[in-house]
Amino acid sequence: MKIFRKIEEQQNYSLVKKSKSIKVAVVPTMGFLHEGHLGLIDKAREYADEVMVSIFVNPTQFGGGEDYKEYPRDEEKDLELLKGKSVDAAFIPEPDEMYPEGFKTFCEVKELSEKYCGESRPGHFRGVVTVVLKLFNITQPNFAVFGEKDYQQYIIIKTMTGDLNLPIKIIAATIIREKDGLAVSSRNIYLNGEERKEASVLYESLIMAKGMVKNGEYRVGVLKKEMNELIKTKKHARIDYIEFVDPYTLERIGEVDKPVRILMAVKIGKARLIDNMEVRP
Amino acid sequence: MKIFRKIEEQQNYSLVKKSKSIKVAVVPTMGFLHEGHLGLIDKAREYADEVMVSIFVNPTQFGGGEDYKEYPRDEEKDLELLKGKSVDAAFIPEPDEMYPEGFKTFCEVKELSEKYCGESRPGHFRGVVTVVLKLFNITQPNFAVFGEKDYQQYIIIKTMTGDLNLPIKIIAATIIREKDGLAVSSRNIYLNGEERKEASVLYESLIMAKGMVKNGEYRVGVLKKEMNELIKTKKHARIDYIEFVDPYTLERIGEVDKPVRILMAVKIGKARLIDNMEVRP
Repeated sequence: MKIFRKIEEQQNYSLVKKSKSIKVAVVPTMGFLHEGHLGLIDKAREYADEVMVSIFVNPTQFGGGEDYKEYPRDEEKDLELLKGKSVDAAFIPEPDEMYPEGFKTFCEVKELSEKYCGESRPGHFRGVVTVVLKLFNITQPNFAVFGEKDYQQYIIIKTMTGDLNLPIKIIAATIIREKDGLAVSSRNIYLNGEERKEASVLYESLIMAKGMVKNGEYRVGVLKKEMNELIKTKKHARIDYIEFVDPYTLERIGEVDKPVRILMAVKIGKARLIDNMEVRP
Repeated sequence: MKIFRKIEEQQNYSLVKKSKSIKVAVVPTMGFLHEGHLGLIDKAREYADEVMVSIFVNPTQFGGGEDYKEYPRDEEKDLELLKGKSVDAAFIPEPDEMYPEGFKTFCEVKELSEKYCGESRPGHFRGVVTVVLKLFNITQPNFAVFGEKDYQQYIIIKTMTGDLNLPIKIIAATIIREKDGLAVSSRNIYLNGEERKEASVLYESLIMAKGMVKNGEYRVGVLKKEMNELIKTKKHARIDYIEFVDPYTLERIGEVDKPVRILMAVKIGKARLIDNMEVRP
């Protein structure tokens, strides 16, 4: 496995692949890799001859009071996991390499970026979109794979890619879950024993809503109320948002009269957990 | 000469060139081509095996009260001129092709975009940067040529290209001038006979400042005052700004103690004219 820490080296390597028409898929990550990431890599392998993974905890997508410094990192273990998956190249830049002094350019997807997670985390998606655009330009992929766990992020990146006419296909990989349903996430490490037990409530509330829809309850007000009440039975849970939205435009809907995505964010202890699920009438 | 009106056709054509390692230079224009543009095309030819020219009057870089509708257009003559220069491909999209319904993504270069022309034209450079980024992604060039007449635009695009790690070299072409020194521009067509005569004052004031610097006058305050006074002798001239700036960061400087760029914008009648020149102690 090639390991690149400099933009120029990674880009030169990628441009040679492109000139040979070798199909490349990239999986952008923040490292501390888990089963979820490995699922993305498997998905990438379905599409491409060569799989590249970037590891970069991107400072511009963290807000002032957020967990940039504490965000878990373990490069040694990450590299082992990538080798185990026969990844072809890992791109692991330092923050100074990605954002040298005098960096001034930012990219934004209006409307989609300001709501839901964007409301709780101002500037978050601006940072995500900018770094992903940079990573795309550096790694020059034909395909890029993102996890559906970050559903709003997936839609924002898909929109950016289309709007800017990048010749890249964005692929979504389904959510990988623990046995009790908790979506696998690097941030789950912040949960202590009791919080970890409570954390399955996100999944449970989604499954409950899905069941209610199946039984004919299409009123979003009622569905949200039931989800709220279930989550409030957990001592450490504080709901950030629960929204029923159009799966493409992310606009709020009032009734489940077509396939709808439920998006949710809940703080449990100091971990801010997100999850989502499709429901259809 | 190939003519493409659809993004997909132009991009597929460009991606084939890339896979063959054919060096491509693009010259983005708003059409109504003149000697200045032909100079850019000649410059492009120095660098690349294949030259592509885009013609697109970009609505997102015009403000509410600006001249988007009146901006001069002459596609037939443009195509003749491009054929005369043996341009390989012309990309001429409609606004709906570039900005379909639901378009939401914008790119910005902070600090550089807000001053000088950006102050008089809020949102202008955001529109420029976004459309240029789209054109780069569509035409996939190795080189892109911009005129130094739009000096602030050139620096902003160079910054964006570097910040976003695009594998594209930005080339500047020197200003082409009429006999009396007026920088060639599509907007010169807005000038009536009397205004046209007065319009050479931009160049005259730059040459005067250059002469003063040569004679040891390095104080920007004094130089600006003299330029102001010269321009005010013209009945239809209204100064928008005259600034002495660092040629890379565009930061204002107070003394000509190194190579400095003079940037200026002057309204003459309904035409807003810009010009610039390097001076060095």
